[in-house]
Parts: sequence; structure tokens; C-alpha cells
Amino acid sequence: MSGVRPTHDIVVLGGGSGGYSCALRAAELGLSVVLVEQDKLGGTCLHRGCIPTKALLHAGEVADTTRDAARFGIKAEFGGVDLAAVLAYQDSVVTKMYKGLTGLVSSRGITVVNGAGRLTSPTTVQVGTDIYEGRHVVLATGSAPSTLPGLEIDGRRVLTSDHALRLEQVPESAVVLGGGVIGVEFASAWRSLGADVTIVEALPRLLPAEEESSSQRLERAFRRRGIGFRTGVRFEAVGHSDTGVRVTLADGSALDAEVLLVAVGRAPVSAGLGYAEAGVAMDRGHVVVDPLCRTNVPTISAVGDLIPTPQLAHVGFAEGILVAERVAGLPVSPIDYTGVPRVTYSEPEVASVGLTTEQAQARGYEIEKVQYDLAGNGKATILRAAGAVTVLRAKDGPVLGVHLVGSRMGELAAEAQLIYNWEAFPEDVAPLLHPHPTQSEALGEAHLALAGKPLHVHG
Amino acid sequence: MSGVRPTHDIVVLGGGSGGYSCALRAAELGLSVVLVEQDKLGGTCLHRGCIPTKALLHAGEVADTTRDAARFGIKAEFGGVDLAAVLAYQDSVVTKMYKGLTGLVSSRGITVVNGAGRLTSPTTVQVGTDIYEGRHVVLATGSAPSTLPGLEIDGRRVLTSDHALRLEQVPESAVVLGGGVIGVEFASAWRSLGADVTIVEALPRLLPAEEESSSQRLERAFRRRGIGFRTGVRFEAVGHSDTGVRVTLADGSALDAEVLLVAVGRAPVSAGLGYAEAGVAMDRGHVVVDPLCRTNVPTISAVGDLIPTPQLAHVGFAEGILVAERVAGLPVSPIDYTGVPRVTYSEPEVASVGLTTEQAQARGYEIEKVQYDLAGNGKATILRAAGAVTVLRAKDGPVLGVHLVGSRMGELAAEAQLIYNWEAFPEDVAPLLHPHPTQSEALGEAHLALAGKPLHVHG
Repeated sequence: MSGVRPTHDIVVLGGGSGGYSCALRAAELGLSVVLVEQDKLGGTCLHRGCIPTKALLHAGEVADTTRDAARFGIKAEFGGVDLAAVLAYQDSVVTKMYKGLTGLVSSRGITVVNGAGRLTSPTTVQVGTDIYEGRHVVLATGSAPSTLPGLEIDGRRVLTSDHALRLEQVPESAVVLGGGVIGVEFASAWRSLGADVTIVEALPRLLPAEEESSSQRLERAFRRRGIGFRTGVRFEAVGHSDTGVRVTLADGSALDAEVLLVAVGRAPVSAGLGYAEAGVAMDRGHVVVDPLCRTNVPTISAVGDLIPTPQLAHVGFAEGILVAERVAGLPVSPIDYTGVPRVTYSEPEVASVGLTTEQAQARGYEIEKVQYDLAGNGKATILRAAGAVTVLRAKDGPVLGVHLVGSRMGELAAEAQLIYNWEAFPEDVAPLLHPHPTQSEALGEAHLALAGKPLHVHG
Repeated sequence: MSGVRPTHDIVVLGGGSGGYSCALRAAELGLSVVLVEQDKLGGTCLHRGCIPTKALLHAGEVADTTRDAARFGIKAEFGGVDLAAVLAYQDSVVTKMYKGLTGLVSSRGITVVNGAGRLTSPTTVQVGTDIYEGRHVVLATGSAPSTLPGLEIDGRRVLTSDHALRLEQVPESAVVLGGGVIGVEFASAWRSLGADVTIVEALPRLLPAEEESSSQRLERAFRRRGIGFRTGVRFEAVGHSDTGVRVTLADGSALDAEVLLVAVGRAPVSAGLGYAEAGVAMDRGHVVVDPLCRTNVPTISAVGDLIPTPQLAHVGFAEGILVAERVAGLPVSPIDYTGVPRVTYSEPEVASVGLTTEQAQARGYEIEKVQYDLAGNGKATILRAAGAVTVLRAKDGPVLGVHLVGSRMGELAAEAQLIYNWEAFPEDVAPLLHPHPTQSEALGEAHLALAGKPLHVHG
């Protein structure tokens, strides 16, 4: 259909979390939708991000469980990691989710165009010689791993997360540059799978965006697991050798390893796509939007990692839905990004919602804080897992932040975000029952204590 | 201190979940408390119930993970179950929790009396020759496994859960009489640990108190796991032989096995304790109470499994706290037992809060219901776990019930109970974000669908 100019309600450029959720919701609301994707529907999250990394982490959990089976009375011999089989497992998960997604998109009557799209005007996207015109265009081209100036990625010794997910063998040793979510997750998975890992982080602690006590507990757990980390020191250079890399740091020290994983963040994918030429305001590669994901061009919105909001799939979902509803004429409200739950799926997991202590104090709150140690929790004791639940409230006011550390604790971010987003007081949560014995009881105990009614808490 | 009659604010008879939580809260409120326990503080839950059974189930999870490791790319050889080591693990968990509890009780200045207590008047409990007098007495003597008329427990071939937790070897085969929570949990654990198990349940389905679709999914999972069950048929008799038991059923069929576990429920422990003699109204062994746990005798309250409320540790906690606060003169409200989360910790777990479809319809609600299959959930796919989230609402009204089936789903009862207890509408939950990829997203998806905005749902 070369040269044809169909007119649609929405043309979405990019089929990742933000793009496809926008397409799905728009189609559901009766709009005609074209969804342009050069690779596979599902984007980074499904193919190179959330899903395969969590599968890798789960394979690591299985390896750890097998190694530690005797601690639970089970005889087992750990026989090593078959990384090809781990990848096959990963791929089977991705394939299943991908089939579900393509089936869903097709069942909603969305026109999917497979090809590299480019914005050619405020209402058109060109793919090859075809031009798709929409009453509205949604930019959702996502992000890609970034690197540091002068640090060249070769895909063999110096890797991004994309390469790290496709290795044929677990590296014997690795330096992970970056102690944020991605670096911490890979370090955790690789360690479980047998690698010697050292994380290098320029800021003073791992997961520097999290509550300080969460970082400390994660660092303690990583130390016990034999995961090395060098915090508060900058990367200087990497040299290659036949057997690996030598990473030198600003303090003069050096780390030798088989590979270097560069996990210093992800940058928006916007270059060469015609955004600026169509008049879209940009800022360091990001598309600039208002709180309703509108760009300065009235017919163009943008969502997901392309805009400077948290780089999380569920944020992409929410932004995509918001734009679809807005274009369909439904009333919409800005997303409260502070109320978005955040999970790092390492072992232990670190999760949070709301403000950190530092942020709350910077906003002028007088706060009260309770930390409930999972040592007092039955289920955590059964799992032989360490961790804590930290809850802060405004003095005589609502819960401002919930911070979780421990095995499997990411699932509890679900309850935590309800508490935060509904602006609950600890007194609202305290009388309600958490089932015994679950780790969720620790959330209940923290709220009981904050409400002045501690139960299983040493006074 | 024979013959001494100290006067206390509260004398609590029974140191299980209901009794000790009452003692802890009362002491915290400045009351003087005597806590009488003939065995160890912590009661059934800590020593013979929740905690050791969940440890046994976790050992089973470890065994299953080890056996299935290859499905995740991990090489492992399962070498069998060392039940002595499983018991040592169980005991280490119980001991740690027990130490925490005794430390807590002692730090709050509670007088603990170790001995068999008996109610001797509306204000006194006698232990040996000592009499403890309280302004108020709280009965919390709990429950014990019950059996059927004519079915004799010998502790060798015919067991209760107490015996089942102390076996020296995993039985090669077992018949479990009773498909309620206890029977289902033991069947699940024993199967994981290698036994051939068949459950016999007189009612038409396993977990008959749960949502019907939850029972069906559990049964499907149990079938896949090779756990047998005979539902809708009554137990008739058990015969012993040198090698085991032969269980005959009302339909004339028979089941042979090494042991029979009798899991037909738990009966209140109240006989011979002086309750009726002190004027306390009783009903089939239960102490009769009003919604604030008051008996007909003004100075006597009762909590926990002794009263006809759900036999759950967290219900005991809540009732104990309620009584402590009431006696201390604080305002208290009745517990909404429908809002208490319930979890069966089998593999898969079954959890719920609120009403079943049947109950909601019986109360005259016009309901809307969504079932979200975990096949569409990324984390469940990573775990290779099947299950579903079912949510029902009153038409145009609040959420009436949440029903969960799947691995590790019990933790999600925490969010579910907030939604139910806060009388949320699906529309209140729908805009809020669940972290990706977690199983909690399935709760989000179900609420999105109920609010008319399905995301990852085939239309």
C-alpha cells in the first residue's frame, strides 16, 4: 500500500509498554489506531528488560535454593548452570507473553505496521514509502542503554544489558558499572549463577535513589552473598586484554574481570526520528511534555522512557492509557509519580513507594518513622530471609513513604502503594488484619507501631 | 507463692495467639497482667500449627524447586528428604520465634505462670495451689484436633496434625481425611516431600468454604501434582494392618495407605476447666461471646479458637487486642470477620477476603465478577505457576470479595483486604499502579477490567 495515506485517530510510533498500552486503550474506546514498531511488539520491557532479566533472576533463585537445600532438610546436589537452557527458559517466557500481546493487539483491531517509523509532520509517520496520518500522533520510541563518554561498548568484553542477556556462558567474573536498579539486578543474578561480581558506583551507596537504610540492608546482604561493591568512586577507564578487562577507578585502584557490564542508565531513543524537525520541543534527547503527556505540538503526545518520567514499564502503561483516554475525550488527571511503586528485583528485593526520609524532610515534613525488622516475622524466618519494612508518616498525618527490603518483598509494594495513594493514616491500617504467617504482617506491624499500638515489637 | 492471692487487672488463661496478644496489649496500656500457660507460650500456632506447618510446606517448596530446577536451566540432582533435618529446620524456626515472643512478654512486665490453670470463680484462676485473681479474666485455651465418632487416634497409624508434624519419616502413602485448610496443606507438603496422598472430603469439593472456582483450580493443580482426592463421599471406617491402614468409604470403595491423617477440624479446649461451673454460657464446647468477646459473666471475656469465630492466629491477635483495649477503657468496635483474610498455604496457595459469589448472591447482591488468569501475568509465567485472581463487586458498588489462587499468592491477600475493608470501588483501584512484573499486577488488571478499562485482557 505504498503511498496510501489512511487517516486514523491515532498513530503510535513505538510498540513498547507505553505505545502498545496506548493503542490497546484507544482501540477499546473506539478509536482507529496504527501502531508502528520496527522490532517486536512489547519493546524493551518484554524483549530486553523486565521480563528476561526477571527470568534470569528467577533462574538464580532456583540455583540458590538448590545450593541451600540442605538448610531446609532437602538433599540436593547443585550441578551448575546450563546457560543455554536458562536462555531457552527466558525465551519461552518471552515468547508466551509476546504471543499473548500480539493476540490481544490483533483482537482489538489495531493496525500494526512493522517497520522503522519517522515523524514527518505533526500528524504523519512515515514507514519506508508509506505514510500514516493520524488526528493524533503518540511518540513512544523508548530508550536504549547508554554509556559514558570514551567508554566504548564492544559487545564482547564491554557489554550493555542487551548483550548481558545473550551471553553464552555465565562470566567467571564481572565488573558492573553502575549501582542502580539494572546494575544491582545483574550483579544479583550473576552471583546466583556463580560469577564473581564487583559493582562500581560513583555515588556513596547502592540504589542511591532508595531510602538510605534500604541501601544499607542491601549492601549488608550483598556482602554476605559475596557480591563486591565499590561505592563513592568514579570509573576512569577500561583496558582490554586477551582474557578480559582491567577497570581502573579514580582512586587509582583497578579491578580485573572477564567482562564489564555498563549499567549507567538508559537514554531516550529520539535521534534522527524527525521530532525536532516537526517542531517538538526536546531536552537532552527527551521529548518535553506537560503533566498530561502533551508536547508543545497540539497533535503530538509522548509517553514512556522517551519522556523524563520514571523508566518503568508500569509508568509507560499508565501514560499510554492516559493519552488514549485524553485523545478520546475522557477526563484525565496527571499521574502522581511519587505514588508509583518501584521494585529492584535483586536478592533481596528492594521496593518502595512515596517519599524517602530525606525527601520528606526536604519538603518540610516533621516525620515519624518505624522500622520493623523481618527477624520478628514468621514467614521471613521460614524463608531464612533478612530484611525490613520502614514506614514514615507525617507527624499526626498520613503515610508518606514505605520502604521494603527482603526476599519476595516486591509483591508487598502493591499494598504499600494503596496506603500511600489513598493517603491513609497508620491508624486506618492498624486495625486491619494481615494473614499469619505472611511477610505482609510486617507491614501491618509497622503501621500498628506507628499508630502507637505495637504488637510484636520490642519496646 | 502457694496460696498467695495477688490482685491483677487481667488474668489470661492460655498463652496462644489470642492470649498472649491480649497480655501484650494490656501491659502496653499499663494494666497488670498474669498470663497462665501450661505448655509453651505461643500455643498451637507457634508450636503445632501455622509456623511448623508452613516450615514443612517451605521444605516441600525447596524439594519441588530442586526437582524442577532443569526447567529453569539449573542442573541439580534431588537426593531425597532428610526428615530429621526438616524437623531440625522447623524447630529452629519455632525456637527463634519462641525466644522472640518470650523476650517480648518479659520486656513488657507480664507475669507468666507456667502450669495448668482452671477457672474457679468469675475472677480467679487456680494453678496448682496458687490462685490468681483478676479484675478481669480472659479465657484463651484454644483448640485441639478433633476426630469423628468411633475413629480412634493412635498416633502411629491414625494421626492428627500434632503427630503428623513429628513423624520420623515421610509416609510412603497417606490418606488425609478432610479437604479443609489443614488437610489440603498436609497433602500438599507430603506430596512435595514424596508421599502418595489421597484426600477424602465429604463435601463436594476441596476447600469447600472458598469460592467454587478457587476449589476447581486447586483441584486441577493437585491433579497435575499427582495428589488424589475423593470428594462428596463420606468416611466409613479404618482398619489397621501390619503395614498400614485400610480406609473404607461410604460408597464401598477402600483406600490403602501407610497412615491416615485425621484433619476433620479442631474443637475448643474447654472441658474440665471450670467454665460452666463459673457460670459461663457454653455451646458445644465453645464459650459463647458477643461481638466484643464478652461472655455472659461481666468479668470474663474469651478469645481465639475457644470462641466460634474463624480459627486463625490473626483473628486471635485481633480479639486479644480488642479485649485488652476494652478492659483498659478504650473505645472498641466489633471485628468484621468477613474482612479477615484467609490463606491456605498449599502449592498453589488459595487466599481470599470478603464474600464468595454464593454468599454475595445469598445476601441479595447483584454482582459483577472478573477472573484474571495468571497465564497473562509476567511474573507467574516466570514462576511457571498457574492461578487466577477473581474479584467480585456489587453492581455499581464496592468490591465484595477477592479470591486468589497461585504460587505465593497469599501475600496478595494483604492488598485485597485493604480494598475490601476500605469498601473501595474497582474505579478507586484501577488508576493505581502495580509494579511490573509482579503477580500483584493481576489484582490491578482485575480491578481495571471491573472498572470497564481492561488492559491486558482478551475481550
